[in-house]
Parts: sequence; structure tokens; C-alpha cells
Amino acid sequence: MTITITAFERSPDGGKGLARDTRVRWALEEVGQPYEVRLVSFGAMKEPAHLALHPFGQIPTYEEGDLGLFETGAIVFHIAEHHAGLLPDDANARARAITWIFAALSTVEPPILELMTATIFEGDKPWTAQRMPLVLDRVRDRLGQLSARLGDADWLDGAFSTGDLMMVSVLLRLRASGLLDEYPNLSAYVARGEARPAYKRAFDAQLAVNKPPAG
Amino acid sequence: MTITITAFERSPDGGKGLARDTRVRWALEEVGQPYEVRLVSFGAMKEPAHLALHPFGQIPTYEEGDLGLFETGAIVFHIAEHHAGLLPDDANARARAITWIFAALSTVEPPILELMTATIFEGDKPWTAQRMPLVLDRVRDRLGQLSARLGDADWLDGAFSTGDLMMVSVLLRLRASGLLDEYPNLSAYVARGEARPAYKRAFDAQLAVNKPPAG
Repeated sequence: MTITITAFERSPDGGKGLARDTRVRWALEEVGQPYEVRLVSFGAMKEPAHLALHPFGQIPTYEEGDLGLFETGAIVFHIAEHHAGLLPDDANARARAITWIFAALSTVEPPILELMTATIFEGDKPWTAQRMPLVLDRVRDRLGQLSARLGDADWLDGAFSTGDLMMVSVLLRLRASGLLDEYPNLSAYVARGEARPAYKRAFDAQLAVNKPPAG
Repeated sequence: MTITITAFERSPDGGKGLARDTRVRWALEEVGQPYEVRLVSFGAMKEPAHLALHPFGQIPTYEEGDLGLFETGAIVFHIAEHHAGLLPDDANARARAITWIFAALSTVEPPILELMTATIFEGDKPWTAQRMPLVLDRVRDRLGQLSARLGDADWLDGAFSTGDLMMVSVLLRLRASGLLDEYPNLSAYVARGEARPAYKRAFDAQLAVNKPPAG
């Protein structure tokens, strides 16, 4: 059955790969599943047809036959559960890999989203300069803990898994801030993720949609 | 094998059931699994022994034989995956129930956490009064979308599932704010969750730990 995902018609990041469809593309590339992409405008994302598929009016979504899913974490997990290559066979190792998906999305990403909100949506507010050190420190708390756990390992728990896919994707959102540079092992970890051929294919595919016109 | 979870020695909410161990207790009660609880002080949470189990120094954790897990979402999913009662049998319905776990944790909870941070940790900051309307509006955006999707259904997708367990748990954090009252169907949804015998057992168990001394 054909897999169809949705992505921004025009990504707010202009093709830096930070929109969440890149995470789904990466998972599909890791497991070697072809997919089609339906591009959605910001207007269409809030229309009934898209809201029927995604109640929060976002991308990505995932359709395969009768199945319609939303939420990047759920989609990536679904792909990992149904195709070999993103979850270990051993039951305990599998549970730990799933733990890292949730850790990326529920523990590491929220302070990063707060930083993005403070920078992008509250960047012009009178309080932002004074408040920013607090926001940055919350991100650093998480990065310090993650850095300590990773140590000098290549991946978070043995071989590369969907947990790493999600954590690298979350950390990539910090590149512009320079915060990653404070944690050399995390920078190297993210670079290892980006070096994976499947990531490169996913990145190039989203860039092809968002590339600014030559001129 | 004995299941052991960790919980706050003294919960910051004084036993209102908002600490995340309540979510794990609830899942275990729904599937009828007995469990033991190891209480952890704020100091011990940042010590090497606990950090080995939970790299971000939080509760809850989950231990069963050789398996050690952290992250509430991963723990609750693990319980749902290994015991009947929290996930539908039908493959597509199961995938959708998992989607709601992620939606609760990745889409609905982050703005609620921002509200808690603004109220608790930034409550005394000079910018908070001016900033608060923005923070509240982000929560309302999500609640409005969730309310529209739920409509007059009892649960988010057919029968009660672990997705509802997580969404109700996330929404409970809003009770003190009064925001839930603006969405009668969400208030009723949360009340349905709280009325489940398994929730009540979980709530009472955490309260027994945190009950203020009589006097």
C-alpha cells in the first residue's frame, strides 16, 4: 500500500530540515520504504479536510490504506514497529529504544520549543532579553544531562535506533543557537546522525520542496 | 517478576495526583498489575544511583527484572503493550491509540508545562503578568482543537485506551488554572477519567504517601 505523508508547502525554516516531516522521511529512508508527499499550505492546514486527519492542524500526517495517523512520534514509531532496522530485536533493548523516543519528545524538546518560542514569537517582546537566560539555562540543564549519559558512545543505547533518530532530530533545532557547541559529544552525535545516508536522502527531499528560487 | 516504580518522597503538589508516578500507577491499576514503590528524595534524584536509572534525574522509573525504564510515556506504553486492557486489538485502532499518547505528551502538554513554568518558576518575575495572556492563549489553542475533536464522544477514539489515560492526566494539570472550565466537554472527559476505579486507586495510593500530617 502506498504511504503518503504531508509536509509544508513552504517550510518556515526555508529547507533547513527542521520541519517535522524530515523526521518521518528519515525513518522511511532508514527502512527503505518509498513514500509520496502531499504538500499542505498554512491555510489548508486549518481547513476541515486536514483537521479530520490532524486535529491540531499540523504536519506531518501518515496515510496507508485505511490507516490515518498524526503526531511525528507515533508515525515514526509505527514505521519502526512495522519495518526492520529501527528497533532492536531484544525485548528489553527495544523498550529502551522506545524510551529514548519519548525522552527526545517529552523531556529534551519542550525546553527547546520554549527557546524557539522566545526567539521567534516573543523575540520582539520587551521582556525577552531579560528572560532569555532562564530559557537558555533550562535547555542547558537537559543538554548537560544528556551529554553525561551519552559519554563517548556513538549512540544512546547500543546500535543506532529510532530513539537516536528522534533525539538527533530534536537537537538539530539547536544548531542556530550555538548551544550544541558547548557539548562536543552532543555535536559529534548530531553529526553522526546527519552523516547517515538515510538522513541525507530525507534532508535532500525536503530541501527540494523548499529550495529558494535561483537568481 | 516484581514491578518497582519510583515516586517523589514528597510530591511538590502535596498529593493532588499531578506527579507523573500517578500516570504509571493508573496504568498498572487498569491492567491489574501489583507494584512496589521506592520513594526518592529531591537530593537522591540527582545522585549517581538514580541517574543511572533516569539520566534526567526525575521520577517515575520502572524496574522489572533486568529491565529499567524511564519516561512516563515509555513506561505507560510498555505496560499497555504487555498487559491486556489499555490498547485495542485491531491494528489500526492500536496505532491511533498510540498516537493519542504522543499527542498528549508532545502537543498538548508542552504549552501546559509552559503555563506551569510561568506560574510557578517565573511567578515572581517582572514580565510574567504582561506575558501571561500569550501563554494562556497557547494552551487555549490546543484545548479548542482537542475539544473540537472530542465532540460529544466519551473517549478520543472508541473505547477508553492508554491514549485517554495520558490525555486525562495531562489535562488534570490545568484544573487549578480554571481553563478546563471553558471547555465543558473536556471537563466532562477529565471527570470520566477520574471516575474510573483504577484512577481512584492510583490517586489514593499517591495521596497516602503525600498526605499532610493531621493536626
